[in-house]
Amino acid sequence: MKPWRTVSRRVLLDRTPWFTVGAETVALPDGQIVDDFGFIDMVDFAVIVPVTAAGDTILIRSYKHGIRAVSLSLPAGGLDGGEEPLACAQRELREETGFEADRWEPLGRFIVDPNRGCGAMHAFIAHGARKVAEPNSGDLEEQELLFVPMREAIAKLRAGEILHLASAAALSLAVVALRPD
Amino acid sequence: MKPWRTVSRRVLLDRTPWFTVGAETVALPDGQIVDDFGFIDMVDFAVIVPVTAAGDTILIRSYKHGIRAVSLSLPAGGLDGGEEPLACAQRELREETGFEADRWEPLGRFIVDPNRGCGAMHAFIAHGARKVAEPNSGDLEEQELLFVPMREAIAKLRAGEILHLASAAALSLAVVALRPD
Repeated sequence: MKPWRTVSRRVLLDRTPWFTVGAETVALPDGQIVDDFGFIDMVDFAVIVPVTAAGDTILIRSYKHGIRAVSLSLPAGGLDGGEEPLACAQRELREETGFEADRWEPLGRFIVDPNRGCGAMHAFIAHGARKVAEPNSGDLEEQELLFVPMREAIAKLRAGEILHLASAAALSLAVVALRPD
Repeated sequence: MKPWRTVSRRVLLDRTPWFTVGAETVALPDGQIVDDFGFIDMVDFAVIVPVTAAGDTILIRSYKHGIRAVSLSLPAGGLDGGEEPLACAQRELREETGFEADRWEPLGRFIVDPNRGCGAMHAFIAHGARKVAEPNSGDLEEQELLFVPMREAIAKLRAGEILHLASAAALSLAVVALRPD
């Protein structure tokens, strides 16, 4: 099974540092040429599932304008230019919650859109998470932190209170990792 | 906690039927005006976790150009104009695998990007999935179907063979739903 080949690439809309949209001319393995295959380049981001010594995790309640609702999400944020995913995860956890962690378990790297790209999610469990400072997210949104047992976070996920795909993905990937059988 | 209010909205790039990109002027609850908040409207899509009577699921091996690699994903596809998510899931499962199912269990609706939008994933478990026809996806990509026990699909997820966020999310959400404790 062979990859497609990018013949040329043109930018149609540059919204750096948030996203860049364009189109490619691509050659398929059978020789077919597709001359207008859209791409959306977005910054990669890290999502963190904190787990404290007591077995609690941290959810953030906020209004997000892409979701058009107040809902719950995990700590998350975009990689600052050149930043490693783990360094981003550690920084975002500290900024958004004031927590650090003893051990970081990677849950994988996943591309957001299989056709357009849209960046990648890097997910982590932050084991032994503990408070070291006050939160200082710098985000536009008002935020409320919820400290809840993992079991309750999962109940909230199943009840539809987590509307953000990457948070739902990271939390359920963490469940799979923490209960492998 | 109050929502933001959209004051005005302008399209910057129209790539219908795939996506539309633009910017909004928004009013925050504290009165602050943000005059250039980007949005990306994309079509909603359904992702299906088939489970056969024997406990197998179905993974699709294909090259996806947004992922830039051959990897595994679940059956999935975009809602045709006005289509209900469940109808889309049933159609996509039939087209991509030739399977129908006895019982459809919704796993939720999740917005892809908390700031830009980028459409929503609707995930389902298709219980009692069984073959009724040959696959006929109509997709550009060469596809290979893998019939594997759920346990093996989860092992492949944890081994990094599923690189597509929505597939990883739906599969792990299914695990959470099938093993609630």
